[in-house]
Amino acid sequence: MTLAVRYLAARTLDTAPARSVKPGPGEVEIAPAYVGICGTDLHIFHGDMDARVAVPAVLGHEMSGRILRVGPGVQDWAPGDPVTVMPLRWDDSCPACRAGHQHICQHLDFIGIDSPGAMQQRWTVPASTLIRLPESLPLDRAALVEPTAVAVHDVGRAQVAGGEKVVVVGGGPVGVLIALVARATGADVRVAELSAHRRLLAEELGLTTWDPAADDIGALVGAWTGDAGADVAFEVSGAAGGVDTAVDVLGVRGRLCLVAIHPRPREVNLHRFFWRELTLVGARLYDRSDFERAVALVADGTIPADRLISKVVPLTEAPAAFEALEGGGDVMKILLDCTDTSPDHDYGASA
Amino acid sequence: MTLAVRYLAARTLDTAPARSVKPGPGEVEIAPAYVGICGTDLHIFHGDMDARVAVPAVLGHEMSGRILRVGPGVQDWAPGDPVTVMPLRWDDSCPACRAGHQHICQHLDFIGIDSPGAMQQRWTVPASTLIRLPESLPLDRAALVEPTAVAVHDVGRAQVAGGEKVVVVGGGPVGVLIALVARATGADVRVAELSAHRRLLAEELGLTTWDPAADDIGALVGAWTGDAGADVAFEVSGAAGGVDTAVDVLGVRGRLCLVAIHPRPREVNLHRFFWRELTLVGARLYDRSDFERAVALVADGTIPADRLISKVVPLTEAPAAFEALEGGGDVMKILLDCTDTSPDHDYGASA
Repeated sequence: MTLAVRYLAARTLDTAPARSVKPGPGEVEIAPAYVGICGTDLHIFHGDMDARVAVPAVLGHEMSGRILRVGPGVQDWAPGDPVTVMPLRWDDSCPACRAGHQHICQHLDFIGIDSPGAMQQRWTVPASTLIRLPESLPLDRAALVEPTAVAVHDVGRAQVAGGEKVVVVGGGPVGVLIALVARATGADVRVAELSAHRRLLAEELGLTTWDPAADDIGALVGAWTGDAGADVAFEVSGAAGGVDTAVDVLGVRGRLCLVAIHPRPREVNLHRFFWRELTLVGARLYDRSDFERAVALVADGTIPADRLISKVVPLTEAPAAFEALEGGGDVMKILLDCTDTSPDHDYGASA
Repeated sequence: MTLAVRYLAARTLDTAPARSVKPGPGEVEIAPAYVGICGTDLHIFHGDMDARVAVPAVLGHEMSGRILRVGPGVQDWAPGDPVTVMPLRWDDSCPACRAGHQHICQHLDFIGIDSPGAMQQRWTVPASTLIRLPESLPLDRAALVEPTAVAVHDVGRAQVAGGEKVVVVGGGPVGVLIALVARATGADVRVAELSAHRRLLAEELGLTTWDPAADDIGALVGAWTGDAGADVAFEVSGAAGGVDTAVDVLGVRGRLCLVAIHPRPREVNLHRFFWRELTLVGARLYDRSDFERAVALVADGTIPADRLISKVVPLTEAPAAFEALEGGGDVMKILLDCTDTSPDHDYGASA
């Protein structure tokens, strides 16, 4: 019998035996290796998404693993193949799909929220969701491919070009990944982040950071851009003040890419949008090309995934790991090791 | 001695003798024929822009007229030429100008707000601001070129394409012009407007209108778009509810073009921007190509300018005309006739 982490109710997770699901036509069964805990998983843990999530729910959508067995009709995949999963299923018939935007299908099944996720030792998914990983890429690092695909998508939505000046507001995992992808695109990047721990990590990755609580960001932007303002800002903080900062730093025709989830309406300085002809672009999830670029960026070390992994804990320690992440500031990414159910261990430089 | 309309203080205009200004190098003196009263002029009249406007101020930036005399070094222009003016002067050195966005120069001189405008019988401006009018275009209609240029710019910023479904929120002069320009671009257009008078006028121009106070706009959009939502919305109302409507009507990857001025921050449903990957685009003013297209659209009757002119009054009646416009709903565009200082007269089908 294998194990699964289950969300039962607000702030209540357990680890329970789970049955392996035989892959049907077009499906594969995977043995997950590592699964990252995402901000969305935390929202679910807090009970904020109870209206959407059917309990008991197996969470997890940032993963790596190997194929165990393939169902009838599955071609191009074989047991042992290292994979990650693009956790989206669309209906291919709604207006969004017909317009070519399947990733924001109006009836999207987000695997790991709307259907069972990867925080288990056996996981059956459609082969159409598989993304091939290079054998040379350690599987722990590969668990960062999904959030990297988010960052690739966001940088693409903002149409960041080489030489542009980019401010990332919010230096958590997705913010830092956006900063790294934007830098890889040739942009000059600043990260505004309140947590000293996260700023330090970003600095160690060669990123310049600002502290919105202590720095005069308006003056810093002015000095940096010759009073032109930034070309692009990413709002990744989810905070009202983050929206204001992201609007304020932009120069004429600047683009604000909205990445964070703001469940309630926010006050926005629309006059500035008018006056400077700014653009706000919403960005959600990713498509296959984003995932494929993300694999390449993690595999070639452009994304130093090992540096972003704060800790790897066995699947059975998931409840404690969720609680540790609630503190927020002093960890980046925690991975669950689905193959190892021994006690908590710190993560070294190489896995 | 010629006359000028002067703004003196909140709700106080007068008509006073004004001196003709001899055109200097690169300047021309114009005899304005017709000058439209714009929403911005009303804002100034209300005292809302006293921090920006130096009194006494001559307002007016929607105009037509003929050149009276040209200053030294002016080529290509001669007395008698029919013209309108693109009322912008930029510094050509700020970051916005260097990036090619002179129309939103960080030190823009908007003629008619920041420097003397067209509500006078003699007006001296740089020849660089002139836009040539065809002799065949009646000068009263030509006074609609400037707001039409706004609409052309807005439709361009929203990248409206043929066949797209477009909702214009707010059916005042600029909203109706946007609807007409979008229709001329091949879009299928709906206008949401509270005023019955303005809806009637829009319907007479062949536009389909909705009443946000009585109609279920969500249901109308659903039926119209097969539940896809609109491709583009224009927020031209300036109201909080208008922003909500413009966001709500959009389908995935929809674009909201922000045209109206919202002096204070507005609550915006950012979650919808994220969820549907919407785009918000600020639009301000115009450039020369917008003006040139606007001349063509007014000249060829695509913009039925005569239908949008509610009334033409002599320059001396400007104070009463401003008061009439405050009522809002039952007039569209009022023109001041700078050549005629006789009592108020109604405007017929042809001038």
